[in-house]
Amino acid sequence: MKHTLAMVGFGGMAGWHYELIQSIDDLTVAGIWDIKESRREYAKSKGIHVYESREDLLADESVDIVLIATPNDVHKEIAIAAMEAGKNVVSEKPVTLCSADLKEMIDASERTGKFFTVHQNRRWDGDFLTVKENIEAGKFGEVFKIESRVHGSRGIPGDWRGEKEHGGGMVLDWGVHLLDQALLFYPGVKLNTVYATLDNVTNQLVDDGFMAILGFENGVTMHIEVGTSNFISLPRWYVLGQDGTGIIRDWGNDIEIVRALGVDEGDVVPIKTAAGLTKTMAPRRDDSIHKEQMPEVKSDIRDFYKNVMAVLEGKAERIIKLEEVARVMRLMEAIFESAATKKVIEFEK
Amino acid sequence: MKHTLAMVGFGGMAGWHYELIQSIDDLTVAGIWDIKESRREYAKSKGIHVYESREDLLADESVDIVLIATPNDVHKEIAIAAMEAGKNVVSEKPVTLCSADLKEMIDASERTGKFFTVHQNRRWDGDFLTVKENIEAGKFGEVFKIESRVHGSRGIPGDWRGEKEHGGGMVLDWGVHLLDQALLFYPGVKLNTVYATLDNVTNQLVDDGFMAILGFENGVTMHIEVGTSNFISLPRWYVLGQDGTGIIRDWGNDIEIVRALGVDEGDVVPIKTAAGLTKTMAPRRDDSIHKEQMPEVKSDIRDFYKNVMAVLEGKAERIIKLEEVARVMRLMEAIFESAATKKVIEFEK
Repeated sequence: MKHTLAMVGFGGMAGWHYELIQSIDDLTVAGIWDIKESRREYAKSKGIHVYESREDLLADESVDIVLIATPNDVHKEIAIAAMEAGKNVVSEKPVTLCSADLKEMIDASERTGKFFTVHQNRRWDGDFLTVKENIEAGKFGEVFKIESRVHGSRGIPGDWRGEKEHGGGMVLDWGVHLLDQALLFYPGVKLNTVYATLDNVTNQLVDDGFMAILGFENGVTMHIEVGTSNFISLPRWYVLGQDGTGIIRDWGNDIEIVRALGVDEGDVVPIKTAAGLTKTMAPRRDDSIHKEQMPEVKSDIRDFYKNVMAVLEGKAERIIKLEEVARVMRLMEAIFESAATKKVIEFEK
Repeated sequence: MKHTLAMVGFGGMAGWHYELIQSIDDLTVAGIWDIKESRREYAKSKGIHVYESREDLLADESVDIVLIATPNDVHKEIAIAAMEAGKNVVSEKPVTLCSADLKEMIDASERTGKFFTVHQNRRWDGDFLTVKENIEAGKFGEVFKIESRVHGSRGIPGDWRGEKEHGGGMVLDWGVHLLDQALLFYPGVKLNTVYATLDNVTNQLVDDGFMAILGFENGVTMHIEVGTSNFISLPRWYVLGQDGTGIIRDWGNDIEIVRALGVDEGDVVPIKTAAGLTKTMAPRRDDSIHKEQMPEVKSDIRDFYKNVMAVLEGKAERIIKLEEVARVMRLMEAIFESAATKKVIEFEK
């Protein structure tokens, strides 16, 4: 079955969607609308149809899917208007700015019977899938800590992403991805506690970085961190299990795994540092550890749109579930509350 | 002036002290006492004088300094007995197991007029001194985060260090060093909040690792972490400032510093990852950053004993102050309380 999509908002991410959709069978882009004339002119220069207005776009009966790729604060209003105009909706992330707004969007979906989902594209990131697959394969034994970091050094982009009223800040921008990934490791396991701090290094209006410590009911601790003033990056992923450690240093890298072997090393020779001895921290003998590299798991981000179309045709379950999106939204609110109150938030009992 | 030291407890660390003292002018070791016959025999085999008993050692009028290098739970009783016998005391770290015990030791020092200090030897670690010197030299601009980690993969040593009643566990063993260092960066600045988690990966009796997030009144956050099930180590030090980032990957390494230059990079080219674009996390152009390596700051751990002797001779102020030792002890107690209650501890208001 053929599907036709129109885009509200035509900035950088919409351009990425446009390119992606060119390679997806049975999905075509009918046109775009953007409130900025410069973006409309740009679309025209690329040979893309530009509607006369948002109303014009929503009135196009050939369109069954509307992609919303605007600043975050207007996702809600546009999504509700689109569903009420009979369109299915894909919203860019973060879906909106708070749980109350998200509820209005979900209510609109139920009221209109239209499909509504969020472009949580980083569920397809190879690094995330690689960590998840190796954890599930038992490569680390029982896992007790997962650390997920994204570090850059450019501060917050100088557009609406730096402004609070438009839903700027790194919790909503990158956090929404890393937290969504974090909650997928142990489905059904309660997240008991959230402790977070926010950074305001280059921007005082919104957080330009954050750190969140998540305590799960199964004993796993997750450390989720985004930084935009990090001129040297810490590794993208770091996983600790009873039997071994895994690391992915950067996007697109394989995972390095180091595990213990059952080799008796005999007496440990302490290492001498400048100011003292340590046996505890002495390195292991090479024959007592096993090192391996597991290749990055490959994925195809086109599966996002293929799933949207299959759901619309009644052939598949949705991959991005609204209760998952709502849980991530509540978690981001808990992070803001923890940072503001300097307290641990009891998230799920 | 010549000084004579005797050792109570002759395990691994005492052997290290013994070797060190051989190279210090005006300080000699009169002999040792250990409750274990095997350790006494070992000392004799090295030609070291072994006293008949602890009482015999404390009765030796030639001895003016007693070093206590026993398991942690008996430091207090031995220190008080030694001071009451007229000896000055150097205790291994952690000085004792709780603030109440430490107060008894400090009271004994005041009552007897004898000098009492703690071997916080890692104040002389080159990595710590290098980070501190570069922060103070303004290499990172205004610092907002300091991360200090020590990672090993051997679990807890299989001796008394794995037992709670002897004061085992990594908070007391390694934490006492890292926390002592942490509190030296900003003297006089209040530590407002403490949040901590403990690990029990290979040992259920005591913590075999921990993570503490320290929130200081000046806005600096410190992340202090010890792990003993880490088969791949994260860097020893990681420092974030407004103008740059510093990293020391392992003991004995120089510090790598990367700072921003005031170069306009023009339009940022987004990087394409498998599942999306990012401008925020795009790497910098080489001409917009400055990289340098600053050499490790050198130190001489013999300065610890030289300071002890100078204090005894009335020629210097003590380097390791008892109020600092007491503050670290309170901080370790706050870490245990935070981990047990899963709450943020308000440490200093």
